[in-house]
Amino acid sequence: MEKNLMRSMELVGRERREVARQLSIWGEECDEDVSDITDKLGVLIFEIGELEDQFIDRYDQYRVTIKSVRNIESSVQPSRDRKQKITDQIAQLKYKDPNSPKIVVLEQELVRAEAESLVAEAQLSNITREKLKAAFTYQFDALREHSEKLALIAGYGKHLLQLVDDTPVTPGETRPAYDGYEASKGIIQDCEDALTNWVEAKAAVRSRLSVRGSRQRRTHGRGTRVSNGEGISLADQDRPMPRGSGEWVPAEEHGRHRARREEDDEYEDITDGEEERVRRIDGEEIRTSHREPITLGGTSNGLRGRDDERNRGISD
Amino acid sequence: MEKNLMRSMELVGRERREVARQLSIWGEECDEDVSDITDKLGVLIFEIGELEDQFIDRYDQYRVTIKSVRNIESSVQPSRDRKQKITDQIAQLKYKDPNSPKIVVLEQELVRAEAESLVAEAQLSNITREKLKAAFTYQFDALREHSEKLALIAGYGKHLLQLVDDTPVTPGETRPAYDGYEASKGIIQDCEDALTNWVEAKAAVRSRLSVRGSRQRRTHGRGTRVSNGEGISLADQDRPMPRGSGEWVPAEEHGRHRARREEDDEYEDITDGEEERVRRIDGEEIRTSHREPITLGGTSNGLRGRDDERNRGISD
Repeated sequence: MEKNLMRSMELVGRERREVARQLSIWGEECDEDVSDITDKLGVLIFEIGELEDQFIDRYDQYRVTIKSVRNIESSVQPSRDRKQKITDQIAQLKYKDPNSPKIVVLEQELVRAEAESLVAEAQLSNITREKLKAAFTYQFDALREHSEKLALIAGYGKHLLQLVDDTPVTPGETRPAYDGYEASKGIIQDCEDALTNWVEAKAAVRSRLSVRGSRQRRTHGRGTRVSNGEGISLADQDRPMPRGSGEWVPAEEHGRHRARREEDDEYEDITDGEEERVRRIDGEEIRTSHREPITLGGTSNGLRGRDDERNRGISD
Repeated sequence: MEKNLMRSMELVGRERREVARQLSIWGEECDEDVSDITDKLGVLIFEIGELEDQFIDRYDQYRVTIKSVRNIESSVQPSRDRKQKITDQIAQLKYKDPNSPKIVVLEQELVRAEAESLVAEAQLSNITREKLKAAFTYQFDALREHSEKLALIAGYGKHLLQLVDDTPVTPGETRPAYDGYEASKGIIQDCEDALTNWVEAKAAVRSRLSVRGSRQRRTHGRGTRVSNGEGISLADQDRPMPRGSGEWVPAEEHGRHRARREEDDEYEDITDGEEERVRRIDGEEIRTSHREPITLGGTSNGLRGRDDERNRGISD
């Protein structure tokens, strides 16, 4: 899933740059002002394509981090299985040979397995939360930066358009000579500066919360740092858990994400066996009871059961 | 080109919604807080997909408007051809039969053709500028709105993450019961409100111009309206030219753009014959002489000749 999305985003970036090139080429045939402005617009649109590529790299960091949760999930399974296996053995033995001395041995083994399992589940719980927050914080930070930069480019694009002389001429009348080269260069330079100088601390778009209720923050420690709105670095995401056997130390795959992205050909998403889960969940009244309808953008329900993919002409 | 881009953007939107669904489904298996938050994150990401779709619709308006310029370009060609043909006929006749009475007739015809051509060229010049500005103003307005909305969603996503309790638990310890349902619903509601209430006049990201030089605005009249930063509607883009024969009245295709998008299967981009043009332009020293290097995002030159498409692992 995530990889499909990334491939499509990559395509968008590539085609965006192609569109930019074509615009620039087309404009060459036109009068000086149109030619200059289309070339500069091409530069801006090309830059959008470049930013789209950068966003994909960051999205991949998010993906790898989320994927690590699944790795932990599967690493916890053997511990669960082992506990179950010993429990079964004891039950079987108690039925067949209730006085077997093996029972005591197995019961001691079960205590150890249970202890291990408790650690495993605690680690899973801790790591899932840590990674989930780190991954999405990273994605949202990247998305915010990407979006604000695109909005900046849109604004500078509009400045460029003002240099096109669209005063109608009458037949035979010649337009005044174009003298906007310096101005258009300046706009591109201003845009470049604005993009270079963008920092999260100066993000312009604010997602304000209403004072609907006393909204409790449930996190502290690491969570608080994230909630300050500071950027999060995934560089330290592989630090070892403060306690535990280290058996499920998350994969070292995050650091060299670019390398991974190149090797990592197969699909490994976190949603295998989804169909089965959906069906089971749908029958599970307790779980769904607290899920009240959520409306966003006119859809009246939560995420599941949404009607998707209206037919759109372009894809035919 | 533009259509390829739109198809890829469409794919991104569709896959984004799929990713959102999978996230929500995966989270169902987790503890209450993780389950609630992943479902709500799914709602936000799904909404990004919906916005991506809306952006495509607006991008299509831009595309149709830009395409109309090409339609005008091709409609001017017969007028140019006719003038050339008469000129040739006169030259031939003057060589073969210098006293032919036809010459006078043809010369009168040439005067008429030249008049028509003057009108045609003026119309082309006027319409090209008008449509170019309208199309890109529309695209940039749409891009700005889209980007700012995505940035809003990113911010609300970060608020949601704060509801995940990532305080590490020790083995055997149970987490406090999750009580964030109201808060997470509130965040989604706030996000919905923020998106609904977004208006261009309140756009947060500002593309400021430096005071590098006295930047002259070259437009007035219609141009000034656009430069106020107001939204532009393409609804009036088909109004007839204030003067002229009406021979090149732009296609009526813009109004019903959605209908067009469905019919409009073939590629009709503005850049046919690009290869030939590139070659010719590359040799044309005069044209390129005023194009000083533009740097944006670390590329040292203008748009043409940029090195593109670094190899990226994901597309293999």
